[in-house]
Amino acid sequence: MSSNNNNEANTDDSILLEEFIDNGLYRLTLNDTKKRNALSEEMMAKLKSLLTDSTDNKSIRVIIIAGNGPAFCSGHDLKQMTAGRDNDDQGLTYFKKVFASCSELMQMIVEHPKPIIAEVSGVAAAAGCQLVACCDLAVAGKSARFITPGVNIGLFCSTPMVALSRNVSNKAAMEMLLTGEMVSADKAEHIGLINRVTDDADLKQETTALAELIASKSSLTLKIGKEAFYKQKDMPLSEAYDFASKVMVENMLEHDAKEGIGSFLEKRKPKWQN
Amino acid sequence: MSSNNNNEANTDDSILLEEFIDNGLYRLTLNDTKKRNALSEEMMAKLKSLLTDSTDNKSIRVIIIAGNGPAFCSGHDLKQMTAGRDNDDQGLTYFKKVFASCSELMQMIVEHPKPIIAEVSGVAAAAGCQLVACCDLAVAGKSARFITPGVNIGLFCSTPMVALSRNVSNKAAMEMLLTGEMVSADKAEHIGLINRVTDDADLKQETTALAELIASKSSLTLKIGKEAFYKQKDMPLSEAYDFASKVMVENMLEHDAKEGIGSFLEKRKPKWQN
Amino acid sequence: MSSNNNNEANTDDSILLEEFIDNGLYRLTLNDTKKRNALSEEMMAKLKSLLTDSTDNKSIRVIIIAGNGPAFCSGHDLKQMTAGRDNDDQGLTYFKKVFASCSELMQMIVEHPKPIIAEVSGVAAAAGCQLVACCDLAVAGKSARFITPGVNIGLFCSTPMVALSRNVSNKAAMEMLLTGEMVSADKAEHIGLINRVTDDADLKQETTALAELIASKSSLTLKIGKEAFYKQKDMPLSEAYDFASKVMVENMLEHDAKEGIGSFLEKRKPKWQN
Repeated sequence: MSSNNNNEANTDDSILLEEFIDNGLYRLTLNDTKKRNALSEEMMAKLKSLLTDSTDNKSIRVIIIAGNGPAFCSGHDLKQMTAGRDNDDQGLTYFKKVFASCSELMQMIVEHPKPIIAEVSGVAAAAGCQLVACCDLAVAGKSARFITPGVNIGLFCSTPMVALSRNVSNKAAMEMLLTGEMVSADKAEHIGLINRVTDDADLKQETTALAELIASKSSLTLKIGKEAFYKQKDMPLSEAYDFASKVMVENMLEHDAKEGIGSFLEKRKPKWQN
Repeated sequence: MSSNNNNEANTDDSILLEEFIDNGLYRLTLNDTKKRNALSEEMMAKLKSLLTDSTDNKSIRVIIIAGNGPAFCSGHDLKQMTAGRDNDDQGLTYFKKVFASCSELMQMIVEHPKPIIAEVSGVAAAAGCQLVACCDLAVAGKSARFITPGVNIGLFCSTPMVALSRNVSNKAAMEMLLTGEMVSADKAEHIGLINRVTDDADLKQETTALAELIASKSSLTLKIGKEAFYKQKDMPLSEAYDFASKVMVENMLEHDAKEGIGSFLEKRKPKWQN
Repeated sequence: MSSNNNNEANTDDSILLEEFIDNGLYRLTLNDTKKRNALSEEMMAKLKSLLTDSTDNKSIRVIIIAGNGPAFCSGHDLKQMTAGRDNDDQGLTYFKKVFASCSELMQMIVEHPKPIIAEVSGVAAAAGCQLVACCDLAVAGKSARFITPGVNIGLFCSTPMVALSRNVSNKAAMEMLLTGEMVSADKAEHIGLINRVTDDADLKQETTALAELIASKSSLTLKIGKEAFYKQKDMPLSEAYDFASKVMVENMLEHDAKEGIGSFLEKRKPKWQN
């Protein structure tokens, strides 16, 4: 269980570290460095559990996902996957379970009421690259790299491409998917996969500053907006406008909009209820 | 009512100036500088009225929307919105009306038969940024800036994001929406929100040149193409191809295509009927 | 019919040259230089025929489409189109046939099981620009240029815009479509229409190297991934994840994934069955 005491639930060998930081930030650090922070069954279960716990936690306003070691996240745990082949059905049931679980995790990030920022150091590979693409925002250190290497092992990165192709152009996505080659942080920024590139030494500080800025807004407003963003993206234009207009009307009737607009007109700082 | 005499309908204190320029250009200038060109009820009504009048006006081939003063357009009129809260229903009916009216205006721009170009000087904020995103093309002066600041006042820019997220990548849109920070003209060009950045002094001239270039084409052809563009965007690929093929066949049977192709093969200038 | 002997089916005056190159590359070169490689009826028929033949040809792993002469491809054959106007129905039936045939060709490229790379030297105009946009990847020489000039001849590039608007932002697509102006290779790379720009002298070599890299992957894996890519693009997010998860499970059960993952864990080179 989470708590407000830093690292209470963490032990040194925990594969996922949680940290409550000042100003409403909640930092999750992938820490299974031996496995290059693979999305093993255990890692996915932990991540989901902490994301679920954080959903209604009012002390959490913005979530950062970072990684310890040379890899941000290496994607699926190939040893675990391969062991699944020993089952009577050659792994069919197991593979279904694993890919469904991973897609569920990625959609939890999209559907989570709090903004989630990827802080990328090292390599983000396959489902690890998908994790970056799924987050609302992403900041990367200069030496970070991105890759969808499935083609190199005969397994096309088909689920990562769902997130990737909703962030970058067709040609850019296809180049990563068909070649399985590394992409630099600068290139990733150029094609729209991430928001910003920082010096490696400044990565944590700059990501934290970005998170703090967002955490200073009304949590309710952020929740309303984030949810509406992904919903309207899948709608045709006029339907999207009808939906978004309804969202704005409801938002207007909330205390935080009344307070926010009032404080703006009165030239004072707003006091959020949420 | 519009006319071909420059500024006939304009008075010095008109909140929206209209100007008929040579070569089929029609220039609308937001002029409510005291309100930073806010999309007040009055401004939206005037804009809609002039856009409607221009629909079938054959002397208008391309429309430019510009703004006087330090703001291109500051978005909704927050004082007017706040006054709406005094109603018996806390503003519910009023807010519905305002957001519906604004979404209608934005879709009028998209559905308008003439190409519409935003000429952006100063700040384009909230629904003002949406206005830029809605226009077919946008040119900005070097010092222009773009912002969706709703989160700063507790009211997420949910309708602006409909247009924004159909122009820029998810991550770029989310950064603007979640942070409520200013984006420079260069950044706006980088992420695809606008087409070009000019020196402030050259803004009007360069936008006019772009508009004149487009105004030299057949108005009918532009109308066919613009309408088809936004319609096919919301279709799956094979449906889009079926639709666009039908559009091209119909276009081929029009006089202006016959004349245009004929003049091209005969190496002479075309004479458009429309 | 295709064969493994280089150029067997080619004669010097063939409008479409085919070449089987080492390592599974198949190079198609538009060679109707007098017509600036227009997509005449004959050219479309030949291209379709060779693409169809290559579908199940196991010696072909990656296809390159290039063009001889100053134009990569100039789009439809306007003289042929104009001749169609002499028919009793002013060309209606003929135009329908031509645009349907062209849309079919473009969708064959998207639906083809092998990755297809455009190698662009010279001008890619109208349906020729669409051809570049349709290919999975595109490399262009520094002096290559891109244009959708339909507005200049009264015939909006409505079918090219289907492909164009699925590769670049609304504003960038609209600027090309409404102005009918040339876009440089660097600009095309900037807006996402192509992947890479090379020195003109290095174009063929660099495209070949890219194709060889992709040809070294499992053909089955590439086929699975390419097909899934375009299918999932038209789906809402959760449907796309369900679909892509199913694709990954099926991919996992194929020999090439077993071999690829096994070889990776054993640190040896994979031996693809496909």
